[in-house]
Amino acid sequence: MRYAPLTQAIQGETVDAWDIHFKATSLKERDPSVIILSIGDPDFDTPASVVDSAITSLRSGDTHYVEIEGRGCLREKIAANHQASSGQTVTKDNVIMLAGAQNALFASSLCILEPGDEAIVLQPNYITYEACIELTGATLVPVAMDTQNHFRLDKATLSAAITTHSKAIYFATPSNPSGMMLRKDELQFIAELAITHDLWVVSDEVYSHTVFEGEHVSISGLDGMAERTITINSLSKSHAMTGWRVGWAIGPIELIKHLSNLSLCMLYGLPGFVQQAAYTALTDPDALAESEKMRLTYQRRRDRLVKCFAKHPQLSCIPPQASMFLLVNVSQSGLNAQQFADALFEQKKISVLPATAFGKCTSDFIRISYVVDDVQLEDACNRIDSFMPQFLHLRTLQR
Amino acid sequence: MRYAPLTQAIQGETVDAWDIHFKATSLKERDPSVIILSIGDPDFDTPASVVDSAITSLRSGDTHYVEIEGRGCLREKIAANHQASSGQTVTKDNVIMLAGAQNALFASSLCILEPGDEAIVLQPNYITYEACIELTGATLVPVAMDTQNHFRLDKATLSAAITTHSKAIYFATPSNPSGMMLRKDELQFIAELAITHDLWVVSDEVYSHTVFEGEHVSISGLDGMAERTITINSLSKSHAMTGWRVGWAIGPIELIKHLSNLSLCMLYGLPGFVQQAAYTALTDPDALAESEKMRLTYQRRRDRLVKCFAKHPQLSCIPPQASMFLLVNVSQSGLNAQQFADALFEQKKISVLPATAFGKCTSDFIRISYVVDDVQLEDACNRIDSFMPQFLHLRTLQR
Repeated sequence: MRYAPLTQAIQGETVDAWDIHFKATSLKERDPSVIILSIGDPDFDTPASVVDSAITSLRSGDTHYVEIEGRGCLREKIAANHQASSGQTVTKDNVIMLAGAQNALFASSLCILEPGDEAIVLQPNYITYEACIELTGATLVPVAMDTQNHFRLDKATLSAAITTHSKAIYFATPSNPSGMMLRKDELQFIAELAITHDLWVVSDEVYSHTVFEGEHVSISGLDGMAERTITINSLSKSHAMTGWRVGWAIGPIELIKHLSNLSLCMLYGLPGFVQQAAYTALTDPDALAESEKMRLTYQRRRDRLVKCFAKHPQLSCIPPQASMFLLVNVSQSGLNAQQFADALFEQKKISVLPATAFGKCTSDFIRISYVVDDVQLEDACNRIDSFMPQFLHLRTLQR
Repeated sequence: MRYAPLTQAIQGETVDAWDIHFKATSLKERDPSVIILSIGDPDFDTPASVVDSAITSLRSGDTHYVEIEGRGCLREKIAANHQASSGQTVTKDNVIMLAGAQNALFASSLCILEPGDEAIVLQPNYITYEACIELTGATLVPVAMDTQNHFRLDKATLSAAITTHSKAIYFATPSNPSGMMLRKDELQFIAELAITHDLWVVSDEVYSHTVFEGEHVSISGLDGMAERTITINSLSKSHAMTGWRVGWAIGPIELIKHLSNLSLCMLYGLPGFVQQAAYTALTDPDALAESEKMRLTYQRRRDRLVKCFAKHPQLSCIPPQASMFLLVNVSQSGLNAQQFADALFEQKKISVLPATAFGKCTSDFIRISYVVDDVQLEDACNRIDSFMPQFLHLRTLQR
């Protein structure tokens, strides 16, 4: 049968990035000693009050069609939060609920990109960006962050990447996989370029509530950016709600209107009981306290891992400022990222992702997710400690 | 800002079709005497065992990422049901869970259509088909059913609509809005054309469990059709689960693989607790019994409405074989469909949809949804009885 060319755009190599993860989850069913550090799914339960809220809503018969854009009270709360944190003036009319940040990224791309367009993406970037951009017929133009300098923005490279075909700049801050945040001066630089060249900016901020150090800045609050910024966020990470599929896009009213037309034929709205749960997540003190507790736990885990890697001269790791991931440069081990990940899995039953999937610039790195409890994390650190000496030996030989 | 041309394709006139419905739902907040017969949202609650199943799942922490294609047990059950009813041999590998039949229609269109393609749609058709098809860059080619002859397939018109650009034939059986089903000989005719011209067939069967008379036939079971048919279904109508956003596509394995790649960047799966509820809907005897009770209730309501319209010579109505809708030809009233709907709303506070939105061929019709309880339905029939005499008078004058 004849398929649309779009089907080619969505079957990129990056789909294979999960192979080691799938192998590990499959093995873990038979062997509980496997430690999975390859996925960004929090090990926490969704806060109880959030679950209770969904249950109350379900019991009350909140199982019918809802407003396509999402419930007013929820969008109002999201608008108020965003205004408070970003400084951008918004109302609920600037907000649309979608089925997770992934769906928001997908839908936004459909509304702004077309064949011939170029979308600049700061790399490393989350794996699905490529498919979201290229399925529209646009081309992804990678701009590598400076991996030698704390993943800072390489301003010259970014400027040089802009052409007459440029339509948008995509990034995540905090970043998955690096956990680094764009500084205000970097965002200001991006904003000036976007204004000069009339570009959209798609700012994925799903880790903005999981910040350990530094200040999260939303580019939408900078002068001249409200009209051209799409801010994407969700509750998946902040509230351990990955499976609920609830997220949103914030942008100019005209964009929200287009996204609403798109949602009408793509989704037909989000379940009411999911939206009630989301409202509770954003307003209930217990839910907010649990979210904060998760943040502190991620921070403690990050510290433990950073301490582990600091012991091994073949590994280097910039402590991430946020998120639930860190990148480790393994190039001094004598193995490339894929080999390192394979060896760690085969010898120590720990699954991590070769970060090649997030962009060429991180091909020397592995991504580690710290979404396991303290006992497993300690175990993982010990296994890494016993795994590394072979490479110390190797390195000595190389000298 | 510069938007993608896709945003034009999704803001068709049909979006305005809901104006009278929105006006009515807004008025109903202040005036409970408004009767809303303009939407296809069942007035029933989701069966209790289905809700309980979601709650059990939520309480057990089933709130994390799930398999992109959907849970194996659920897809197995759907495959078994489809095989039993259609005769097509399928396994779970032929099934993918998506966020409702709407999402399945959207995603399928993206995977099979491209700019320059023509997609033939049997009309009247559900409103969102246009956006789903045209956002891919393809053109919707309408083929009107014979409204003068029980909405039967006009074989000559269908044959004549096929060109070298034809890529797919879309239809719903049972149909929304007509409630009529394609007969086996009609489906056989469509199948032969599809095979001869190497076309996809997208068969929307969301009302296949709400059949009053006649046999629902799935085109996927006809010779040579398994490889080219995408069967779309959901639980929204059969189990009063519109707000849950759960549906699926059944098709060749290669298509399911493409849909899975698409879902990875579009949705990232469906909530686990929604899938558990869906599994219960399809397997629990109480849930199935409730679904059957709903069907019988729709049938009784249809009979009541048909009896009402039979009294009024200015109205003609073919009793639908299935669904929760019926079409009434109002052309003998002296008003067009929009005028009739407006007058009925203004004078009698009943909202119905002018069926113009479903295709030119039904521009003389209004669509009535029977999703209100017996008391309201009786009230609606009485209001229609008192509304009609003015047109009888009009008609006498015209003679």
